[in-house]
Amino acid sequence: MMTLYDFMGSGNGYKVRLVLDHLSLPYTLVERDILKGETRTPEFLTKNPNGRIPTLQLEDGSFLFESNAIIWYLAEGTKLAPADRRARAETLQWMFFEQYSHEPYIATVRFWKHFLPKLTPLQEMELPGRMEKGYAALGVMEQHLGRHQFFVGGQYGLADITLYAYTHVAGEGGFNLDNFPQVNAWMARVAAHAGNVFIDRKN
Amino acid sequence: MMTLYDFMGSGNGYKVRLVLDHLSLPYTLVERDILKGETRTPEFLTKNPNGRIPTLQLEDGSFLFESNAIIWYLAEGTKLAPADRRARAETLQWMFFEQYSHEPYIATVRFWKHFLPKLTPLQEMELPGRMEKGYAALGVMEQHLGRHQFFVGGQYGLADITLYAYTHVAGEGGFNLDNFPQVNAWMARVAAHAGNVFIDRKN
Repeated sequence: MMTLYDFMGSGNGYKVRLVLDHLSLPYTLVERDILKGETRTPEFLTKNPNGRIPTLQLEDGSFLFESNAIIWYLAEGTKLAPADRRARAETLQWMFFEQYSHEPYIATVRFWKHFLPKLTPLQEMELPGRMEKGYAALGVMEQHLGRHQFFVGGQYGLADITLYAYTHVAGEGGFNLDNFPQVNAWMARVAAHAGNVFIDRKN
Repeated sequence: MMTLYDFMGSGNGYKVRLVLDHLSLPYTLVERDILKGETRTPEFLTKNPNGRIPTLQLEDGSFLFESNAIIWYLAEGTKLAPADRRARAETLQWMFFEQYSHEPYIATVRFWKHFLPKLTPLQEMELPGRMEKGYAALGVMEQHLGRHQFFVGGQYGLADITLYAYTHVAGEGGFNLDNFPQVNAWMARVAAHAGNVFIDRKN
């Protein structure tokens, strides 16, 4: 059986939980509290040298990290991952967009404002720029979703799961999604698929 | 023929140029100067709504963006991409590591210090933390390379190309790699494969 090391408030972890649930893959959940540094211990660094959750231990005992790589691994050959080369590349395009242009702004601001007791002076200074870039990412999504029901190939898949993870809790970072009707409509479509897998609002 | 929109000083663009060269794929190069905002024009945003290079126009006229998604697309089915599911996931693991834990620190600091005339006060404040996280990424690489000749499966491939792009010009951002002997030895091995494809030091 696989073991998932995770922090329940993490959107990155949520992606993995969602895919495991969709594919009915059994796993053991081991929580690691990132607020207490539990992914930076010498013991944890032997599992993931980058000291982050989610980290998945496969049945052969080896470890895989990076949420989007993990869900790619789990979903290959299933209906969640495209069989077509061009659609696979487009799925990865949105998954890399998420990690580079979306997560560092929307997820980071949510983490600061929702999980930290108080922002540092540097975080306070960075906040407006991070919010602006988060809204820019939402703008790119809004534009794409004006022409597409789902991100790739007209059907629910890994790109949607990846982008949904932190978009659906963006409000916890103070993002106002009222001006993104296409994003809201897409979130409702994704939620119908996502079902009951939960993201913990606050650990 | 494919068309690559690129900025010659970009390590992300360099990845794509390197893979195109390795696979002997002909393409037209169209330069866009990011220092003059040439990827944020209304015309360019119709190619890539996220306003970034590299952006590749495929032979069917459609566009693909995100460097790591582009090189994945180009390399699928070649010796640069693993045929094995587990090795594919590991390749993506390092490619997502690069975009999340490496590029925002090593590439961004290089861009600030090498291409900008002067840092803003906020950039000055962010600099020490960005350098620290860049060195942390190099530390993760150093550890992995102590046990492996290349990042995945014992042979040169996409993960190496991705991580080499900004590591081999990290010095331009002020990073001192003297304490990373394994990274240096790996860079020499990668350079032997990379050949003559160039990254423009300053456009």
